[in-house]
Parts: sequence; structure tokens; C-alpha cells
Amino acid sequence: MTQMEKARAGVITPEMTSVAKTEQVEADWLMEEVAAGRISLLANNMRKHAKPCGVGGGLTIKVNANIGTSSDHAELADELEKLRASVDAGADTVMDLSTGGDIDAIRKSILENSPIPLGTVPIYQAVVETVEEKGGLVNLTEDKIFEVIEKQARDGVDFITVHCGLTRAALEMLKAQGRITDIVSRGGAFLTTWMLHNDRENPLYTHYDRLLSLARKYDVTLSLGDALRPGCIADATDRAQIHELMTLGHLTKLAWEADVQVMIEGPGHVPLDQIEANILLQKRLCHEAPFYVLGPLVTDVAAGHDHVACAIGGAVAGRAGADFLCYVTPSEHLCLPDVEDVREGVIVTRIAAHAADLARGNKLAIDRDRRMAVARKNLDWETQMELAIDSKKARAYREKSPPTEEDVCTMCGKYCAIKQVKDYFDK
Amino acid sequence: MTQMEKARAGVITPEMTSVAKTEQVEADWLMEEVAAGRISLLANNMRKHAKPCGVGGGLTIKVNANIGTSSDHAELADELEKLRASVDAGADTVMDLSTGGDIDAIRKSILENSPIPLGTVPIYQAVVETVEEKGGLVNLTEDKIFEVIEKQARDGVDFITVHCGLTRAALEMLKAQGRITDIVSRGGAFLTTWMLHNDRENPLYTHYDRLLSLARKYDVTLSLGDALRPGCIADATDRAQIHELMTLGHLTKLAWEADVQVMIEGPGHVPLDQIEANILLQKRLCHEAPFYVLGPLVTDVAAGHDHVACAIGGAVAGRAGADFLCYVTPSEHLCLPDVEDVREGVIVTRIAAHAADLARGNKLAIDRDRRMAVARKNLDWETQMELAIDSKKARAYREKSPPTEEDVCTMCGKYCAIKQVKDYFDK
Repeated sequence: MTQMEKARAGVITPEMTSVAKTEQVEADWLMEEVAAGRISLLANNMRKHAKPCGVGGGLTIKVNANIGTSSDHAELADELEKLRASVDAGADTVMDLSTGGDIDAIRKSILENSPIPLGTVPIYQAVVETVEEKGGLVNLTEDKIFEVIEKQARDGVDFITVHCGLTRAALEMLKAQGRITDIVSRGGAFLTTWMLHNDRENPLYTHYDRLLSLARKYDVTLSLGDALRPGCIADATDRAQIHELMTLGHLTKLAWEADVQVMIEGPGHVPLDQIEANILLQKRLCHEAPFYVLGPLVTDVAAGHDHVACAIGGAVAGRAGADFLCYVTPSEHLCLPDVEDVREGVIVTRIAAHAADLARGNKLAIDRDRRMAVARKNLDWETQMELAIDSKKARAYREKSPPTEEDVCTMCGKYCAIKQVKDYFDK
Repeated sequence: MTQMEKARAGVITPEMTSVAKTEQVEADWLMEEVAAGRISLLANNMRKHAKPCGVGGGLTIKVNANIGTSSDHAELADELEKLRASVDAGADTVMDLSTGGDIDAIRKSILENSPIPLGTVPIYQAVVETVEEKGGLVNLTEDKIFEVIEKQARDGVDFITVHCGLTRAALEMLKAQGRITDIVSRGGAFLTTWMLHNDRENPLYTHYDRLLSLARKYDVTLSLGDALRPGCIADATDRAQIHELMTLGHLTKLAWEADVQVMIEGPGHVPLDQIEANILLQKRLCHEAPFYVLGPLVTDVAAGHDHVACAIGGAVAGRAGADFLCYVTPSEHLCLPDVEDVREGVIVTRIAAHAADLARGNKLAIDRDRRMAVARKNLDWETQMELAIDSKKARAYREKSPPTEEDVCTMCGKYCAIKQVKDYFDK
């Protein structure tokens, strides 16, 4: 039985109890939300979870870190180090997006070493193996796709990106309308190439029932992918994107009828003034299913600092109702991230998620900032270091520039504003 | 005559012509906006300007970098290097906030070397010299404050922060209401200490006419400071802050009556859901005077990454109507920034300003992103590097991780989405 099925039967599972405790919400309420599909619990039933993760409205916003090899760089040890860096920096989940090296071995090793839920994009492995075995992705078979999905589900993968809403109709719309960057989703590009070359519909759409039965068997949450997400500011919120989103709304209902948990993936490159509308559209068209945004990046020209463009977009999206933020690293659009990029990406995305949690009135977030403010007022530096989202970097900064008077810092030195007026307001 | 006075007389000055050309706006329109006070031109009449700067609605959002010594670290050479880093990274203005070393010499050297407008906070120098000469800031005289202001104006400083709205009434309100972090503005703390100890009103308020005559003489733009800005999320948008803002609205009108240009400084630490209201309040209460925000920081717990918390707040504030963003560096709340911190602070704040410019429909911003998108579609890497806000970092990333096929990157390698579907959509 899936978490959703159990919730609908009135059962509070150990995963629900654990999440309710961490998030300081009522377990009964959480069960109702899981039953309704507004919260998904990422917990494959083949795997023991050190730290189950709930995603959806009313919970803190979660952060995902993408790791994995590419055809140009495939070292298992590097990916395991990225996994450790992600967990240390506070990621709630990781996705293994490997397309290079021994993909099965890499995934299994990451699963063994990860204390947090793991996601994948099974079409990657299906395509990479087909290219190696049959010389080209156009030779991919429908069975191959589902075999890879089942293999990964059996291994214990908690959520999978499946681009089920990419249909021939959506592609026609994209072509008729025109776009600058066409398709920037890797999985979306694989499927599009296959569909157009073979003149066929998307098998993840036509055989959605087969996908649902696999997802139900292992309680894999379907992360319904946005193959047609905009790849630049000029392409944002167009007919192709919204067509796919509407299809995902339909598929969400079908999944829920089969007791399968879902999340909806969202853009992409979106200017600041369109983010709120994008969240509202997703929440309405997809019946308040949890929303997992890939950015959004609020400009195209931040290469080298796309993690900051993503933090801006993620914070605004989170405030508007997005539930799950996929990080972006400083290497986005430039190269495969290294360990330091991964760490930086997780930290700034956590800052964005936290800023949105504050704005959404989350009590845990508000309490943390209040404690930090009190520590600042008291010139209590040790507590400030502990409460910082990145304690390690905060401590390093303070240590490299020690002040003359130990209760202040070298920014204002003896002219510290808080220290000056303390006596007047504490009286 | 000030720029405002000339604009009111129907004169298009060389500074207006220069700004209109850079911003691609009509010079006539710009003149009208300067006459109305909705745009300020930072251009002290004692100084030749390589690059005049306009701040206000209808222009691109500007970015300021704070540099300057502290009592704990005072090396002129370091500050000149920070100046160069700021200009290289694209800052529109710098402020010299020095409180250590030979403050006159530092300011003069920065003025000589800066191709962009310079701002200061004269109360710093007045207090530091009083502490050195008379043993304590409570011995500061009113004449000393105005003497320092005139000296700095004569040197060519283009804008000065003056905390004229900090009144005894506002302080009473702060005390009655209570706050966690009381006062975090250094200038505000100096004045508060002086006012409470000497039981006097703020001389910058009581002798505002004297300030206006100096500002008019040198065409120094008054940046009306927010001494009572919130220093933490819990203190945001409180009575003390809004009381000061209302006083600044009154003082704005008085300045405009004297042909003196002004900007209004704003918070501070503000949660995401309160930023838009803060901008609307400023624009309404201060009659659409240009708004210069110090952040806003959207969380208190981002120490080590406060530049990112600032980029999030700055982008949202800019979209809502803020005209000028003061950067924050990664060292905020921890220590005096070094050159690398300054560079990083300017770059991320420029990303925030640019994201807001896009959302405000600025044509120059939209065109830049469109050209980047076309370069991405064409796998034209050199153009991508040129269009990046931080070309240097983008190039460094690409060079450290060279792809096997030179038209892609190591993120997706041969499975590049854009490359895959190019043929289908270019047909």
C-alpha cells in the first residue's frame, strides 16, 4: 500500500509520525493532506528511510540537490562526495542524474549512502543504454523505458521525473508558436527526438496506466516533468508550457485515483513579474498538488552566478506557494558542478526556502530569526554562529578578521551601533 | 544652480544629455522628471564627472557599493583596490564610509580615482574627530556637523546620507513600542546617543534649512537616511520606522522647494511579504522621490551569504519600484569586506537589479536577455561569455571544465538538449 492509500484508510504511518514531529504539525492533519494529495511523502516502500521527507502546502519548503555523472565526467567517488556535501549543507533530497559510467552501480551506491530521499530521471538511463547498445536513441523501445523504471523503483528510488505531459499536440503548439530556445529539458529533448523521428505519441502518456501500476507497487512518487519549460526569459509562460501543465493536471487526477503520489515540476526561466501567476496556474490546474520548481531563474545573463538568479526566483516562488525548490549551482549553463558548487547551491537555495517560509508565516522559521536577532542585540557571537544557515562560512569570516574589542566586529569596530545605544534602550 | 533648478528653468544640462543617451530615454522627459524630483542626478557641481548617474523611476535600477576603512582596519591602498573592484564589477556609485585613518585623505584619494559618483555619511567623520579631540561623541557640536558637511561637499561628494528624520518623537515611539535590535544604523546610533545624553533635538532636523543651503550651493543630493530602519525581521515595518519615513516625506517637500535633490533611504531587514508595502509607502509618503534601499535582507540567518539575502530582497524591491540598491557583501554582520567580498557583492546586486529591470519592462534589459537566449540556442559560447553580467567568472568556469565536443558543456555533454532538437525546430 502507498502512503496515500494508507492515509485514505485512516492510518498514520511511521513516516507521517516522523514528518509531523519534525515539522511540528498535527499527525492527523498531515494524514488528511496526504490522503488529498496536497502533500506527498517521499518514501519508496523498498527502502528504510533515516529521514522521511514531506513535500506540500503547510510544511517547510524543501530543497533538492542534483548530482550525477555526465558523459564528459563520470567518477563515482566525486558523486559520493557531492552527496555528502549536499546532506551536510542541509539538502532535503538529492537526485541522481547520471548519464555517464556504470549508471546502475552509481545509483545503488548513492542509495546506500544517502540518508535522505533519492530521485532519478529514468529516461536518461534508458536512452544512454539504447545509444550504447543500438547506436541511437531513436531505437529506444517502450518496454525499455518501463524496464528501467521498474529496476530503479526496485532499487529504492523515492521519486522519478517522468515527462508524461509532453504530447504531440503540445509539440505542434510549440512549433506553430515559435520559441527561441525550443526545448531545454534533457528528458524532454530525448522524448521529442524519439516521437518526431518515429512519428509516435509519448509512451509515458499513452501507457500512463502501466506507469501508475509500477509507481503504486513501490510507492514511488511521480514527479510529473515539464519537458516544455521555458529555457529563456522570452519563452516564459507560453502556450506550449501551459498546454503541458494542463495535461499534467489531468494526469494528477488519474494518479490520485490509483493512490499514486505526485508532484508537478515547473519552470525554468521566468521573469520576476510572471512567477506568481505561474504558481497560481499550477496550483489551480493541478488541483493543489505539490509544486517542485526548477529555479525559476529570473534572468538569462547570470552565468557563473545562476545559483543567485535561482535563489531570487525560488524565494518568490516559495512565497507564492511553491513547495519544493530544485537548486541551481554557480556552474549552471557552464559545466558539471564540482563539490564546492554543490555546497554553494544547496546553501543559497536553503536561504531562499527559509526566506519564503518566513513570509508564509512558518513558526519554526520565524522563531529561528527571532533567536538570531536576540543574539545580535546581546552581541552573543557564538549563538549567531550556531543559528546561521551556513555556520561554517560565518565562522570562517569572523575568524579571518578578528576585532580589537571581542564583542563587536571589524565592520564598525568600536563604533558598533548596537553596542552604543544598548544602555539607553535596556534601561 | 542645481540640476533641479536648471531642469525647472527648462535647461537640458550636459549631465541630462549623457544620462538620457546611456539609458535610451528622451532628454526632454528626463528634464521633466528631474524638475519634479522623481529622478535625481548625482553630480556635485565642484567635480567633473566621467559618468553622471541618474536615479529614479523610468531609468535602470542603480547599484551602490560601500567601501571605506573602520577603526579596526584602515589602509588607504585596500580601499582604492575596493574602489577599482567596484567599478570593474559594474557599480554605478560608491560610498566612502571610512571611520578609521586619515578620513580627509582617504576621501580625497577615492574622489580623485573614482569615475563614478561618490557618497558619504558626514556624521561619521564629525563623530570620529570629536571622539579623538574631545574624548566622546556627546561633546559633538552642531557647528562641527555642518563644517564637515561643507568640507565634504566642497571636495566634490555627490550625495550624502543625512539622518534628518530621526526626531525625539520617533525615539519616544521606538521606546514605547519596544524592539529587539533597537537601532542598527551607525549614524542613527551616533545621533541618538548625542540627543538623549544632551537632551536635545536632532540638529539635522532643527537646522534643516542650513543643510539645504549647503546642498543647494554644491548640488549635493541629500540621501535622507533611515536611522530607524529595522535591524531584524521581527522589527520590520513598525511605528518608529514609519514615523521617520513620514518625517522624510515632509523634508522631501522642503528640499524640493529649495531646488535641492533628494533620495529616500529605506530598510533594512524586511520579510518578503512586507517589501511591496514598504515600497508603496515610501513612494506615497515621499511623493515619488527616488528610493534607495539598503538590502532589504529577507532573513536574519544568512550570515556569510547576506549578499544573497540582499539580492532576493533587492530584486523584489526593485520590481516593486525601488530605484537604487545598496549592495551587501558576504561579510555583512561578520567583518569589514575585503576586495573579493566587494566584487561578489556588486555582481549579485547587479543581477538583482537586472532581474527587476526585466520585470519592469526595461527595453535594454529585455534586449540583453534575448541576445543571450539566441546565443544559447546557437551554441555560440563566445557571445554567451560576453553577455554574462560576470564574464570573468563565466569564462573561468568554462575553462576549468572543457567539454569533449566543443559546442556543448560538461553538464550534459553529448546529450545536450538544445543540440539534440535543433534540427527538428530549425527546419
